[in-house]
Amino acid sequence: MPDPDCLFCRIAAGEISADVISQDELVVCFRDVAPQAPTHILLIPRQHIASAAQLTEDHGPMLGRLFASAAAIARAEGLAERGFRLATNAGAGAGQSVDHLHFHLLGGRSFSWPPG
Amino acid sequence: MPDPDCLFCRIAAGEISADVISQDELVVCFRDVAPQAPTHILLIPRQHIASAAQLTEDHGPMLGRLFASAAAIARAEGLAERGFRLATNAGAGAGQSVDHLHFHLLGGRSFSWPPG
Repeated sequence: MPDPDCLFCRIAAGEISADVISQDELVVCFRDVAPQAPTHILLIPRQHIASAAQLTEDHGPMLGRLFASAAAIARAEGLAERGFRLATNAGAGAGQSVDHLHFHLLGGRSFSWPPG
Repeated sequence: MPDPDCLFCRIAAGEISADVISQDELVVCFRDVAPQAPTHILLIPRQHIASAAQLTEDHGPMLGRLFASAAAIARAEGLAERGFRLATNAGAGAGQSVDHLHFHLLGGRSFSWPPG
């Protein structure tokens, strides 16, 4: 169920505007408002899932759709050659700032290691 | 099909030893030999998939299993409170060093932003 107090539920519902790249019945993809790379897109499930710590096998279809969307966006953004990084933070201690599962797709620059 | 020249296919097949945390018919999880955090585990599909750039909806069941495994490992490693970060690099330009899809699960320390 959508959480009326959740920023990303409200973006998914169209109640708060965002620079949406693609969306379907499972997943919504939009540009991060604080981009950390030339391409920085957030991919979220429409379903309110607090973080990756809550994922189960039942989320397989959503995850398949989400990662297929990531690959398609990477191609559309011209990242096939240079590559891209996908990351998600689970918990405030790891840097999660919105408690709705989101994957960051970053590309268009070089990346250091470790990932933060 | 396994790639006989792929390090991670060979680890999944048991031909090369690794510190395996868990495994089943879809996913193998083992500790990174160059850990970047107190907990640093790699999660890979048994199937040879070059990178996240090749993912499609058909990979949903594997992804569901992989992320359920990540959540279970995070609980087992005591990361529920402090949180954890999951990341994957697609392409050498993004830091991918083995051309077999792998997700890094990092935890047990604080993380900076952006993720590399």
